[in-house]
Amino acid sequence: MSPKKPKWREVADHFANEIAEGKYRPGDQLPMIRELVAQGHGSKTTVMAAYSALEAEGLVTTTRGHGTTVRRRPPQQIRRHQDRYNWEKQLAKRGDGERRNNGVVEKDTGLDHDEVECHAAFNAVPADQEVAARFGVEPGTLMLHRHYWHSTPGSPIALSLINSYLVHAVAARNPDLLDSSREPWPGGTHHQLSTIGIEIAEIEDGIRTRLAAPDEARHLGIPAGSPVLLLDKTSRSTAGEVVEYSHVVLPGDRTEFRYTVPLDRWED
Amino acid sequence: MSPKKPKWREVADHFANEIAEGKYRPGDQLPMIRELVAQGHGSKTTVMAAYSALEAEGLVTTTRGHGTTVRRRPPQQIRRHQDRYNWEKQLAKRGDGERRNNGVVEKDTGLDHDEVECHAAFNAVPADQEVAARFGVEPGTLMLHRHYWHSTPGSPIALSLINSYLVHAVAARNPDLLDSSREPWPGGTHHQLSTIGIEIAEIEDGIRTRLAAPDEARHLGIPAGSPVLLLDKTSRSTAGEVVEYSHVVLPGDRTEFRYTVPLDRWED
Repeated sequence: MSPKKPKWREVADHFANEIAEGKYRPGDQLPMIRELVAQGHGSKTTVMAAYSALEAEGLVTTTRGHGTTVRRRPPQQIRRHQDRYNWEKQLAKRGDGERRNNGVVEKDTGLDHDEVECHAAFNAVPADQEVAARFGVEPGTLMLHRHYWHSTPGSPIALSLINSYLVHAVAARNPDLLDSSREPWPGGTHHQLSTIGIEIAEIEDGIRTRLAAPDEARHLGIPAGSPVLLLDKTSRSTAGEVVEYSHVVLPGDRTEFRYTVPLDRWED
Repeated sequence: MSPKKPKWREVADHFANEIAEGKYRPGDQLPMIRELVAQGHGSKTTVMAAYSALEAEGLVTTTRGHGTTVRRRPPQQIRRHQDRYNWEKQLAKRGDGERRNNGVVEKDTGLDHDEVECHAAFNAVPADQEVAARFGVEPGTLMLHRHYWHSTPGSPIALSLINSYLVHAVAARNPDLLDSSREPWPGGTHHQLSTIGIEIAEIEDGIRTRLAAPDEARHLGIPAGSPVLLLDKTSRSTAGEVVEYSHVVLPGDRTEFRYTVPLDRWED
């Protein structure tokens, strides 16, 4: 689209488009580098740079003997948090059956309830500087740290890596909230907090990026050296206090955030 | 924060915190790798992995002879689009002087008006598949493509790389809108569109990440092989039509998006 697009990017975009349009499907092999060079698509350096870019973007994998093949990608997540957060909050007030069979993970990915496996590990930790600042408590305050990840059944690939924090003394008002074996909790955090008289009024999202750490890349099933999206999610109660903070690491190759911003009309 | 943090990440986070707290300032040198090993911070491999991570995250640079030094970073951008877009829209209705001395770039970065330089290049291009789909027009429709980048005066480092599109026949209703020498246009796109009777009612943001292309990394002043944030911004008029689409590439090491999501109250 830009007039200054380099040649290797043009070649990469050509194949990215053909993959998006389904001309090449998961498992299909892209043309050999020497074929593309012979067909006049650019020098060997150009074509190799194009294929490296496609690999870094998670569209293809290159293996000795099999050339460059289109990757089978885990489900794409388009996260519309303005809808999601309100939907999730109202779900907490529905009947137990409805809460049991619905969740935001299913909503994000389009997977059915029985296609999602929830993994949870809880522990009590002192707040570090960052977590303390989020809650406005003293560093060292005891927090309930909850690590979650979701996958399709039996898969080692996580949809995201979630680290959620609650003030331990607050969560402990309902001892069930300290028990990871009760996860996945029907109705999620909104319902959990409702059992101790807390209603979330507002959530602030912060979105950043960085390269995946090697263990994150492995767990999310993304190429080493590729980026993740970071979501810092701060939930404020109707009393104006921060009651939950989550730090979420999402695979950069298959996550998009969408927000709609309505604008005030001009007065004529 | 996670109980499973690997040793190299602990070492990297230790120095990231000390840099954030100003204990190490831009230009300062971090301890030599062999010093840290001697002090028991981990093996040579661990410390090297920690320093590589800090470099990939844009916090430090490593040069032969100077060791690992803290980077001087261009201004951090926290983009609160819900405020920004409304502010920008209302600015378009203010007097000429106020429009001339204010802009969203200044608002995002905290820079003064005379600390920001605007670079603009326009051309007429046929819509490719993606741009056509955004506007709901036929591929090949003539578009006005506007490439913008902003910097501090004389600096080659761009704050972001902006590719903005308007339907050419629509923009041409005011020939001044086709003239890049009129940039920076006081009051920006909202004011430009107001001259042809268009008011933007709603903007949709899409946020993704990928690795920077080599030329993007150079222009944004970020390390090669580090990530960018991608913003796809679609503006819809009061008549419900897409009237502008921008694809913005932002440096991953110094950009954060923030959105606030108010939640509907529970009915008791």
